[in-house]
Amino acid sequence: MPLANTPDPPYYAVIFTSTRREAAEGYAAMAERMEALAATQPGFLGIESCGGEELAVAVSYWRTEADLLNWRRNLEHAEAQRRGKADWYSSYQVRVAKVERADRFDGRV
Amino acid sequence: MPLANTPDPPYYAVIFTSTRREAAEGYAAMAERMEALAATQPGFLGIESCGGEELAVAVSYWRTEADLLNWRRNLEHAEAQRRGKADWYSSYQVRVAKVERADRFDGRV
Repeated sequence: MPLANTPDPPYYAVIFTSTRREAAEGYAAMAERMEALAATQPGFLGIESCGGEELAVAVSYWRTEADLLNWRRNLEHAEAQRRGKADWYSSYQVRVAKVERADRFDGRV
Repeated sequence: MPLANTPDPPYYAVIFTSTRREAAEGYAAMAERMEALAATQPGFLGIESCGGEELAVAVSYWRTEADLLNWRRNLEHAEAQRRGKADWYSSYQVRVAKVERADRFDGRV
């Protein structure tokens, strides 16, 4: 189920968009590990991500702002952030946003 | 420049995540046209998107909520939304979120 099954708003989204360097050894394993680790954190609601040649986009959803701050400070996650800057990313943006409305289409017209 | 050059928050994000049917003829041309059309709309700040096998994620950024509502109601966009439900998407979610904080890394550690 690639779409995250989030509850009714309000809740929080962390929009992480990144470009990578040519040689980004260990990146894929780290990205997979971080998605799995995020899913064990308090207040985690889901993640939706995809990676293109140019740009990767990962949006994670959290019950409260405190939950996403807690995840930002997780020790293993902080180490991945440090390695990301040193070794993997050529650029990234992180945006914290409060989801106010949501619509869903499940295939029935 | 695949990362959107957005201003300081606050501003709005529309997070559009979708899965497609096996036969989605005309989808790629429509997606490209909609990105180009969005960029001509009042209050458009940028878009960041990628498409994987399983899931496509497109996040567009808007100055105000009125700007993104105006884009939602654009006639050509409304027709693309209708065709999307009828012909292209197996499921999607649209989330409207207010960006409260943003951080950027541009490659210098």
